[in-house]
Amino acid sequence: MADVLYLDDLQVGDTFTTASHALDVDQVTAFASQFDPQPFHLDDAQARQSIFGGLAASGWHTAAITMRLLVTSGPRLAGGIVGAAGQVAWKVPTRPTDILHVESDVVEITPSRSRPDRGMVVLRSRTLNQHDAVVQEMTATLMVPRRPS
Amino acid sequence: MADVLYLDDLQVGDTFTTASHALDVDQVTAFASQFDPQPFHLDDAQARQSIFGGLAASGWHTAAITMRLLVTSGPRLAGGIVGAAGQVAWKVPTRPTDILHVESDVVEITPSRSRPDRGMVVLRSRTLNQHDAVVQEMTATLMVPRRPS
Repeated sequence: MADVLYLDDLQVGDTFTTASHALDVDQVTAFASQFDPQPFHLDDAQARQSIFGGLAASGWHTAAITMRLLVTSGPRLAGGIVGAAGQVAWKVPTRPTDILHVESDVVEITPSRSRPDRGMVVLRSRTLNQHDAVVQEMTATLMVPRRPS
Repeated sequence: MADVLYLDDLQVGDTFTTASHALDVDQVTAFASQFDPQPFHLDDAQARQSIFGGLAASGWHTAAITMRLLVTSGPRLAGGIVGAAGQVAWKVPTRPTDILHVESDVVEITPSRSRPDRGMVVLRSRTLNQHDAVVQEMTATLMVPRRPS
């Protein structure tokens, strides 16, 4: 098992690829029932009449699965994956038959001026389905500790 | 019950306030177990040693609760609340004892040039706890249908 990564261990351009997560109808409707109870996330017949043209996962479900994949099989950042902010864009619907994985790259590293024990890392993550279509793009600003001296 | 809102019914500056949602430890750890299994979202003792200084909800859990509140008691948009993209920032930790509600305002309305039946609305939403501290700021770009002529 690799050691955890401190800010000092990261470089712009570093890439990470996670394991995969297979969705199904039960997961899609369970998440939607709890957090996004709209017909196109709950019922295939109604979803077919909607802008999605069929059952689609909540975008927040896609975001949550992306987080799970990053936490469980993405970059092993010291201190964990702690986000201060993020931009999320949903490009095509996530479907109940999708098998998702995440590909990330480091786009910016900024040591903190006021807090010498840490810095901010901008990590760009694309969530792809089994057809390599990008269902979500996310750019997150993460807090990463510096290696203790 | 108010009618649903079409793009034509919205104006920049319109505000909406949702009902409230009370969190608890079980909700925080259930979401984290499934989507963000990091110690500071799962275990209070370990969370006290972390940057959060105590058990904190996953930011994605806060985002998901925000979506639930918007869907169930926010603006009744024709076609539902359908986001294309969003920016999220977590300002202070969401705690298991928090009671959250959402205050939103319309900041931009842009009829589509290519699709005369719809437009985009930028909705800014602040998620507040019972002390009126803003735990999350979100700016979302939503697709909203125009009123059928």
